[in-house]
Amino acid sequence: MENPNGFFPPDRVINAGKSQHNEDQACCEVVFVERRPSPRVSHFSPQSRKGFYFHYWALFDGHAGSGAAVMASKRLHLHICEQLRDLVDILQDPSPPPICLQHDAELSQAEESGEVPSDALPRFHLEKAVSHESLVIGAIENAFKRMDEQIEQERASQHISGGCCALAAVYLMGKFYVANAGDSRAIIIRNGEIIPMSREWGCPSSELFAPFLQAFLRPELLGKEFTHLEFPRRIQPKELGKKMLYRDQSMNGWAYKKIEEDDLKFPLIYGEGKKARVMATIGVTRGLGDHDLKVFSSNIHIKPFLSCFPEVRVYDLTQYEHCPDDVLVLGTDGLWDVTNDKEVASVVMEVLTSYEPNDPCRYTMVAQELVVRSRGVLKERGWRLPNDKLGSGDDISVFVIPLGGPGNYM
Amino acid sequence: MENPNGFFPPDRVINAGKSQHNEDQACCEVVFVERRPSPRVSHFSPQSRKGFYFHYWALFDGHAGSGAAVMASKRLHLHICEQLRDLVDILQDPSPPPICLQHDAELSQAEESGEVPSDALPRFHLEKAVSHESLVIGAIENAFKRMDEQIEQERASQHISGGCCALAAVYLMGKFYVANAGDSRAIIIRNGEIIPMSREWGCPSSELFAPFLQAFLRPELLGKEFTHLEFPRRIQPKELGKKMLYRDQSMNGWAYKKIEEDDLKFPLIYGEGKKARVMATIGVTRGLGDHDLKVFSSNIHIKPFLSCFPEVRVYDLTQYEHCPDDVLVLGTDGLWDVTNDKEVASVVMEVLTSYEPNDPCRYTMVAQELVVRSRGVLKERGWRLPNDKLGSGDDISVFVIPLGGPGNYM
Repeated sequence: MENPNGFFPPDRVINAGKSQHNEDQACCEVVFVERRPSPRVSHFSPQSRKGFYFHYWALFDGHAGSGAAVMASKRLHLHICEQLRDLVDILQDPSPPPICLQHDAELSQAEESGEVPSDALPRFHLEKAVSHESLVIGAIENAFKRMDEQIEQERASQHISGGCCALAAVYLMGKFYVANAGDSRAIIIRNGEIIPMSREWGCPSSELFAPFLQAFLRPELLGKEFTHLEFPRRIQPKELGKKMLYRDQSMNGWAYKKIEEDDLKFPLIYGEGKKARVMATIGVTRGLGDHDLKVFSSNIHIKPFLSCFPEVRVYDLTQYEHCPDDVLVLGTDGLWDVTNDKEVASVVMEVLTSYEPNDPCRYTMVAQELVVRSRGVLKERGWRLPNDKLGSGDDISVFVIPLGGPGNYM
Repeated sequence: MENPNGFFPPDRVINAGKSQHNEDQACCEVVFVERRPSPRVSHFSPQSRKGFYFHYWALFDGHAGSGAAVMASKRLHLHICEQLRDLVDILQDPSPPPICLQHDAELSQAEESGEVPSDALPRFHLEKAVSHESLVIGAIENAFKRMDEQIEQERASQHISGGCCALAAVYLMGKFYVANAGDSRAIIIRNGEIIPMSREWGCPSSELFAPFLQAFLRPELLGKEFTHLEFPRRIQPKELGKKMLYRDQSMNGWAYKKIEEDDLKFPLIYGEGKKARVMATIGVTRGLGDHDLKVFSSNIHIKPFLSCFPEVRVYDLTQYEHCPDDVLVLGTDGLWDVTNDKEVASVVMEVLTSYEPNDPCRYTMVAQELVVRSRGVLKERGWRLPNDKLGSGDDISVFVIPLGGPGNYM
């Protein structure tokens, strides 16, 4: 399944006939966040703020079925909206967010009466300053959590078996919030320069610490099959009694230890890079779903070792004057496995220069070109790129979002 | 207590009369690492490697007594030596460290017979490459762990009540390994440029994640007094039922929640910067000792929330041609609390230029000057700096280690 989408495209999806079952899903919406009606205020005065809009693009890369990806593509933006509803007044007020609200309706009332809520003024010596930006980040983080809980609750009735990676871009009040849980990837290309907007959570080695610590603290989660120690390779039974390099969850360096029976257990994380797997089962450590996933032929649940929280990065669109060729590219791993940042940037440049700067189709054409190049051509020996290397065997989805020029959000 | 020490100084300590009890300790040694005699090899052939030297400087900043700092200053280098003894041949062999040793004596035998140990050749598809450097890091990490275990075992007989921060610099085979557990600090000043060689583990906010996760996973460690949620300030009982900003261990952003009884418990980490405390008790999250430390008027142990492992940073001396004015500065927080990196660099420059480049005293004079300036002068209103700001009320210890010029290690 391949979804080449440009700026504000319809929810159109092109299946290139590569995989029988569509596991990538995409969503693109403009969402109105309506201020939550307060129980204590029966009507709004005409000047009160009713709400605001956000723009939203998201890619969901399913595994073990498309159920989780389909549900998340239909609901995640609604969860984000729901989390933002309480913040309608606070985000539009230039003063720092109040640490404590008197009650749900405090702000609505204060707005109407012209009063400043008493707690908006710093009174406590050790009080932390919290920015508007970090409230939006918190709202997106909690929305991912709610989404994950909804998948858990409805997985039986909706026949959802697997999970999905989720990459979402939210444009709100001059800033892009790029939230990533999984191995999709986002980059900004600005004046030819590449700015990474996400970190992949596919390769477990990039966040070794958390699962190791967890295993160390709750060894019962590991059952009798796994060890929390890391070895440079799998140990063979005949090596018992020899000394091998190891490290534990607190170490960055390596040391030798004598191999004991317990060390022959399977390592929590095995392999490196794209081939690394947590408990020999799953290749991503963040994402939605996977509530029923167990280690092969065992009763060990994987979910406690995964996180549904995204990492959120912020890009302030107002800090720089953008030209029509500056774009934000979102792609699933089907793109990035075969096309690197520089190659993506050069395709962007190449395609954009062949269209008029005010032609709204040009961004869709970039997305299309990125998908086609990464897919390759079906030959006798599989899908091949122009250089005869293997094309992506995976589903490929791409959004190309202009940061300046026509369709500008400002 | 103030220890201005230059390059290769004697183990001299100057008590400036500021604190009654000396809680800073320093150590500077050249240590010979003797190859461990193998049980299977009765004698060494003349050409076999007997061992190597490392240079060692360390500062220990004690709290709640000097016991842990005194013991660590006498023993940590011996633990490092012990950890390195198994690596004498491996570190001197330019080929990559073997993943698996056949038995303790394998390398000694292989060296003598001229054989390469069979496992030194990569055979396994998924084998990780481990560098010599990461073996030294692992040895230092494990030495800190052994040191902490020794303090635990001997604390009763040696009357050790408190703990200490530890900052150690090991020079070995062309590289400096700077290991830090606590709020001491090391910087390199090279050609006027400042290169941080450590991170302070004093401010818990810099490693929020680990203790929060720990509390989340093992709530029984927290007793009934603490909450794993973070709030921007302490909540007052009268605020029950209001909505307040919070975040949990997985969030970077903030959100509002209704305050419940449980939220009135004391936060795991309270305050910010130098005033932050874990469980209202201790201001550092890494260090040695503190095995008996409990939360005030409770039975909750703090030790499970602390780490004895250092962060180790490596500086390769061979990658750059150093001049006699390039130095590594180690200092306890008594120095850094009142004198920042730039001020330290300017004192270094100022003092060094007033001496001949080959005068071996010049580095000692820098250390002396750094201590004197940070201490200030005792006036009626306490110790004052030349600008009349408060001088450091803490113990101050400094090492100034030349990276080039006379006394060069190369």
